[in-house]
Amino acid sequence: MSADDQDLLDNHIQQERGQDDSEQESPFILSDNRIVDIVEALHSGYDDAVVHIIDDLSVREAADLLEKISEEERELLLTRHAAAFKPETYSELDPELQNQMLSKMPPKYVAAIISELDSDDALNLIENLDEDARRDVIHNLSASLRIALVEGLNYPEYSAGRLMQREYVAIPQFWTVGKTIDYLRAAGDDLPDYFYDLFVVTPTYKVVGEIPLSRVIRARRAEKIDTLKLEDIHPVPATMNQEEVAQMFMREDITSAPVVDEEERLIGMITIDDVVDVIDEEAQEDMLKMSGVEQSDLYRAVISTASSRFRWLFINLFTALMAATVISFFSDTIEKLVALAVLMPIVAGMGGNAGTQALAVAVRSLATNELSRVNERRVVLKEVGVGAINGLLFATIIGTTAGLWFQNPMLGCVIGAAMIINLITAGFFGAFIPIILDRIGADPAVASSVFLTTMTDIVGFFAFLGLATIFLI
Amino acid sequence: MSADDQDLLDNHIQQERGQDDSEQESPFILSDNRIVDIVEALHSGYDDAVVHIIDDLSVREAADLLEKISEEERELLLTRHAAAFKPETYSELDPELQNQMLSKMPPKYVAAIISELDSDDALNLIENLDEDARRDVIHNLSASLRIALVEGLNYPEYSAGRLMQREYVAIPQFWTVGKTIDYLRAAGDDLPDYFYDLFVVTPTYKVVGEIPLSRVIRARRAEKIDTLKLEDIHPVPATMNQEEVAQMFMREDITSAPVVDEEERLIGMITIDDVVDVIDEEAQEDMLKMSGVEQSDLYRAVISTASSRFRWLFINLFTALMAATVISFFSDTIEKLVALAVLMPIVAGMGGNAGTQALAVAVRSLATNELSRVNERRVVLKEVGVGAINGLLFATIIGTTAGLWFQNPMLGCVIGAAMIINLITAGFFGAFIPIILDRIGADPAVASSVFLTTMTDIVGFFAFLGLATIFLI
Repeated sequence: MSADDQDLLDNHIQQERGQDDSEQESPFILSDNRIVDIVEALHSGYDDAVVHIIDDLSVREAADLLEKISEEERELLLTRHAAAFKPETYSELDPELQNQMLSKMPPKYVAAIISELDSDDALNLIENLDEDARRDVIHNLSASLRIALVEGLNYPEYSAGRLMQREYVAIPQFWTVGKTIDYLRAAGDDLPDYFYDLFVVTPTYKVVGEIPLSRVIRARRAEKIDTLKLEDIHPVPATMNQEEVAQMFMREDITSAPVVDEEERLIGMITIDDVVDVIDEEAQEDMLKMSGVEQSDLYRAVISTASSRFRWLFINLFTALMAATVISFFSDTIEKLVALAVLMPIVAGMGGNAGTQALAVAVRSLATNELSRVNERRVVLKEVGVGAINGLLFATIIGTTAGLWFQNPMLGCVIGAAMIINLITAGFFGAFIPIILDRIGADPAVASSVFLTTMTDIVGFFAFLGLATIFLI
Repeated sequence: MSADDQDLLDNHIQQERGQDDSEQESPFILSDNRIVDIVEALHSGYDDAVVHIIDDLSVREAADLLEKISEEERELLLTRHAAAFKPETYSELDPELQNQMLSKMPPKYVAAIISELDSDDALNLIENLDEDARRDVIHNLSASLRIALVEGLNYPEYSAGRLMQREYVAIPQFWTVGKTIDYLRAAGDDLPDYFYDLFVVTPTYKVVGEIPLSRVIRARRAEKIDTLKLEDIHPVPATMNQEEVAQMFMREDITSAPVVDEEERLIGMITIDDVVDVIDEEAQEDMLKMSGVEQSDLYRAVISTASSRFRWLFINLFTALMAATVISFFSDTIEKLVALAVLMPIVAGMGGNAGTQALAVAVRSLATNELSRVNERRVVLKEVGVGAINGLLFATIIGTTAGLWFQNPMLGCVIGAAMIINLITAGFFGAFIPIILDRIGADPAVASSVFLTTMTDIVGFFAFLGLATIFLI
């Protein structure tokens, strides 16, 4: 494509954009406008322009592009221009999309992509593939890479062994700073691209300490490594869960950690850039789980999304049926005073909302280990207190409102009393349920809200309709 | 305390613990047992033992201890042993607790703590204090520190300027590697304790590139800095929001970024260890906000917690009253067929749950910028599709159940139809509401769920009771 063509295209695109340019653009995120530009160039057959633009994108921006365009556009783009994307682009993609896209490519091609990646990224890419696709790809890899990856896949999912890279820098205790620097200068490609700490090891590869590069580079050449101030090491067993690894990095403010096998020998390294993604994933996962979604399904197809969400809704249907059963006990009461049917969702709903507040704080605190046996009683009691205070306040508000609305002061008293009971219940169970689930080894983020809503619905309906039956009928 | 005393204490504690030792213990988290030990030693007056144990704790463990004991124990511990805690301990504390504890200490003492910290930690500590306490402390600082901190406080809250440290390593382009290393060796205390990259600057302190230490240490001494492969820089304006900074670090896999002023001159550095905490906070914040809690209030007092949660519940009360109003329109219908009152919370509740699933995915995707104008229509349509599929499935289940329960097939049809309508509504608004809130500049995590429940309640009650009025009465 000539420079003139490029100008023409730019002008054309500029016009199409119109006033959209006013949109706030972050300098490091691929803007919607640029995505629209590329898609337009693709559809108009400006192939050279497309390749040119993709070439200019960072790896992360190219991944943004693939994530945001429609399935049809993605297929078109890859059929025509797969070669324009750097292998690292695929590592950056959402796992769901990674699997979708790589499963459609010839295994040989995927193997070629994987061969270009760092050991941790290669493992990450291959573990996200479906079993069948994975086997096909592995067959097409070089023998050495195949062995390395299969070994990596032997570690449990979400473990340090899967997260680590096999490249690291280990030096003997008795070396000098000068010898260390000379070794690094001569080492060439065996070293990781980026590293922040050196691991100091015994002859049997036990890690005895680590030194930040910023300390090595400032030391005199003649100094011996073990006279430098070594940092405490935080050796990570290869089987440690990645969430625990992330917590450790956060708590200890470290940038790399040695991964060790059962005999405590150094086998790999985890660096903070890998951990950052885990921290983000794990933190976000709790929010999704609490809302009844297993993981972000933005890139999943409609049917597969619907079926993955079905289970949660099905469990909730049971809860709702239990609450309905409670209501049905009081059918006669409701028939005599239909105002009860009007007001009863308020009591149950407020309980659910207040309980969810307590629940979220408890789930969060359990995840960060700020809540454990030593302070759990205090936390539960506090939530009961908070429930009592807000219960009293909302009892006054809704009692007055309902009393005036239905010209029935006693009805106001009944709904007020039910509100107090339900908000105290909500505070108690909001803190207590996640604690109990955590104790029995269940994930508090997943199941808590179902149990909570069950409690606040049942107690809410029962208290309100029960009190009404006694005092109003 | 003699060695014998220590043995005696250890034995005593060992017995008290009993079988609790079986509890799973993470190697890097202060265990509940050790907290109990310390509290016991404190109460029993084993002062030497307490000091001894605290001395052995890492900074993070000491913070754990202060966070988990009760307010009375905390006061006792600090009255007797404040000097045993390292200044960095206070930086590690939860901000709420930090404020509570430091506000009670003499300003002189707090000033002494702050003087010991790195510039970013010092700023972080002082910005969490109440206005009055902050002023008192600042008056007690040395002039140079006071100026630096007040300057830092001039940057907006949660901005890069507040997050950065003023210590960094900048070198001119024309230096050689050898000169750079010599400079670092000679520089002494002006350099940051830890750093991962060198910033290459022009004479006017514009950053032209950065080099990872791991590249500098491997280069020959004679090489000139600007012949080494420089990394792209990601200069951060001092006013950039910390959430954006965190997103940038995650996307670009970088370990440090230069902070620049309006003239793009280098004024500080943000390193990944500071960003890690931001990533975690921001991700968790969304979960708490979606549940109606502004931030973790684990360490807040009962009254202050209750009042902070009141606002959210109050807004929800309005929503509930609107839903109640819808029900009241159909009082006559309910009076004639009380089964409707029994079943109506099911339709509304299932809509709320299904909508929350769509909502969580949308809120998460907006935060990571995976959802924007270019794909929003596709995402909303997908959620409508998911709602339709699950709507059909649950219509069948609940329709059959309700029909059999109340021996009324038509009632089954009505609740089934209402379920389909409400689950489609839920899918649509679950994705649409956060998108609209984001568009108008509101925080989708905060307000989305109120709007969503309002919609699913109103549509749920209206569809079910409306259809019942037409077909059943």
